[in-house]
Amino acid sequence: MRNAIVGQSGGPTSAVNATLSGVIKACAKSEKIDKLYGMKNGIEGLLLGEVVDLSYLYGDEKGLSHLENTPASALGSCRKRLPSLDCDTSVYDKLLDILKEYKIGYFFYIGGNDSMDTVKKLNEYVNKKGVSLVVVGIPKTIDNDLVITDHTPGYGSASKFISTTIKEIACDCSVYRVNAVTIVELMGRDAGWLTAASAVPKHFCGLGADLIYLPEVPFYEDKFIDDVKKALTKRPYVVVAVSEGVKYENGEYVGAGKQSGATDAFGHKYLAGTAKQLEALVKEQIGCKVRSVELNLPQRCSAHILSNTDIEESIGIGAYAVRLAENGQGGKMATMVRTEGEYKIEYSYTDASQVANKVKLVPRRFINEEGNNVTEECINYIAPLIMGERKIEYENGMPVHFRIG
Amino acid sequence: MRNAIVGQSGGPTSAVNATLSGVIKACAKSEKIDKLYGMKNGIEGLLLGEVVDLSYLYGDEKGLSHLENTPASALGSCRKRLPSLDCDTSVYDKLLDILKEYKIGYFFYIGGNDSMDTVKKLNEYVNKKGVSLVVVGIPKTIDNDLVITDHTPGYGSASKFISTTIKEIACDCSVYRVNAVTIVELMGRDAGWLTAASAVPKHFCGLGADLIYLPEVPFYEDKFIDDVKKALTKRPYVVVAVSEGVKYENGEYVGAGKQSGATDAFGHKYLAGTAKQLEALVKEQIGCKVRSVELNLPQRCSAHILSNTDIEESIGIGAYAVRLAENGQGGKMATMVRTEGEYKIEYSYTDASQVANKVKLVPRRFINEEGNNVTEECINYIAPLIMGERKIEYENGMPVHFRIG
Repeated sequence: MRNAIVGQSGGPTSAVNATLSGVIKACAKSEKIDKLYGMKNGIEGLLLGEVVDLSYLYGDEKGLSHLENTPASALGSCRKRLPSLDCDTSVYDKLLDILKEYKIGYFFYIGGNDSMDTVKKLNEYVNKKGVSLVVVGIPKTIDNDLVITDHTPGYGSASKFISTTIKEIACDCSVYRVNAVTIVELMGRDAGWLTAASAVPKHFCGLGADLIYLPEVPFYEDKFIDDVKKALTKRPYVVVAVSEGVKYENGEYVGAGKQSGATDAFGHKYLAGTAKQLEALVKEQIGCKVRSVELNLPQRCSAHILSNTDIEESIGIGAYAVRLAENGQGGKMATMVRTEGEYKIEYSYTDASQVANKVKLVPRRFINEEGNNVTEECINYIAPLIMGERKIEYENGMPVHFRIG
Repeated sequence: MRNAIVGQSGGPTSAVNATLSGVIKACAKSEKIDKLYGMKNGIEGLLLGEVVDLSYLYGDEKGLSHLENTPASALGSCRKRLPSLDCDTSVYDKLLDILKEYKIGYFFYIGGNDSMDTVKKLNEYVNKKGVSLVVVGIPKTIDNDLVITDHTPGYGSASKFISTTIKEIACDCSVYRVNAVTIVELMGRDAGWLTAASAVPKHFCGLGADLIYLPEVPFYEDKFIDDVKKALTKRPYVVVAVSEGVKYENGEYVGAGKQSGATDAFGHKYLAGTAKQLEALVKEQIGCKVRSVELNLPQRCSAHILSNTDIEESIGIGAYAVRLAENGQGGKMATMVRTEGEYKIEYSYTDASQVANKVKLVPRRFINEEGNNVTEECINYIAPLIMGERKIEYENGMPVHFRIG
């Protein structure tokens, strides 16, 4: 028997600890895996030797059920990128030394497309060196922008929060008689998946986002103003949902005017202020009451309203990844496949190299012709992912969260 | 038997429909009240004769329980102010004509300090004219800024949402190793009650807002930067909670730089951008990673996470107001009195004129000496108000809301 190690990387989600719980539960039962370690802050902490023994959680049903409802990465996270294998490989050797010290035979990395780059590179190096280490990736991102997998763990809970909040905001906006436009900005740099979730309440309940703009199609200010004016002829309150990453035809971000200009370690720009820009535009061109709302961080950490479907799948894919590792499927990422008919998913896998650094956009057929809403096919895709509620335990009026160590 | 009418006015809350439900339930049982009507959009709609018969809801337990969990004013709202009685009284005569048409003997108005101005004035006019109409006010505001009543219906649910969300945001911010400051802006123009609720998670769970700034004490930029620097020496992530209405010593709003300049019918300024201003300040003076988050509208409409204490009290005070009316207590507003010992409230009443246009600030003893947090006494005041959860029914993955008519 050899040991395993698990890490979490990239932006936190409300479901990433459910996946961690799935890994813990499967390792506890495994006949090939002895201890399970956790790396603090992903490979960044691992390189500093910051490792915690998670085996104390084996069989702790209550603790794990709290962990499954705890937002953000309980092990901490990082945004560290491994260097190209053509360059300096000393960091890989250092990683392998540390892993050897802990007798690690199985390496699990939970993350998005940047993290799959780590899985791909580490697996390549392990193969090159003939080291016996099975490296497996497990998808995670609220952005739902990973290729091949039907959807990503974390997206369903973020979408349930967005659908619910948009429904509540539409309720709130409907109380006055005066014309008013409310512009809600959702996360999504390149892919509009989260913004698309704002279409769900209006479809089912008749109240929600009236106009929806995704980064997949160019944004035209004139068309936007026309859309809003037209919507205002039907009702006094109009709710607009817009991705932070919507761009003009020339590729410039709509929010660029108020952008911070900062970039993260992967060169991604921080965006903020798209809704604020559009608020100013509506004020200037239409002149009615207008308000902008950024849902911001709560999209990825509002674990008090989780999709049970998402959490169950997140646990399941963690456990499935352990089986992949036991079967020696190194360099793979676990995936979800949607079966035909009534909603159901099956787990499968793909090469992490197929997922690394790629982005899955909302397909054009999911967006209406006018580019100001999504299609029924898109709603049918999202709707099952937000179904079901978790039983959340409260203490002192707030949800109970689990802290490791 | 005569009829009653009820209206909702001012900014929506997550609890204002629970109060409406309390009024409906008590009218259904009343031996003095026959039909209950609802005014659409408060007195604004009433003046247009827009009235809906709510008696169809008598005994509709299921519908009313959904109504109690529905955010925003189900009857619609308004921000209309009645003219001074010394000026033109034609609008009062018009109101009385319409009320006479519907054989109204009891008038309930659910709202904040502006709405109590309506209760006060209408009651004065009714007394002056010798009209038999009992006008009763019922408090409502997430701001908790009404005098005399221990707290206001709606504040507890908003506080539960804020406490929970701040706890989740603190989880989210704790995952990276790099120094990072997250500044969360809460509603509250003059009173810091909502921002004070952000202190609850750290008190009970050790994770939450590290620094808290209320509008009741002057804001000093230098002190703020010192506070943040000091907090960063203890941990890499610092969460700051700040009221939208914090002001410098000279009375100028911190958020003034990015203020829209617009005012509502009562001359209140719309504020936005306090956290954004402080974000820029931290970036400039400290230079670490910094993010601003405005919780915005969800503070008053996130009915998916209601305080059961708040909702039960909101229903109770609605029912109590009906008893006040039956007893002929015109011109009164129902209040809540906190009893000694274990948390419990009793209903009472005061003259609406005592409440109208006044603002209850967070007392100085609730704020720490340094002016960057609240005291234990403040937390003890807030903590019972966020206790308990509602059973929320979901359909299509989203909470079920009730729509009148």
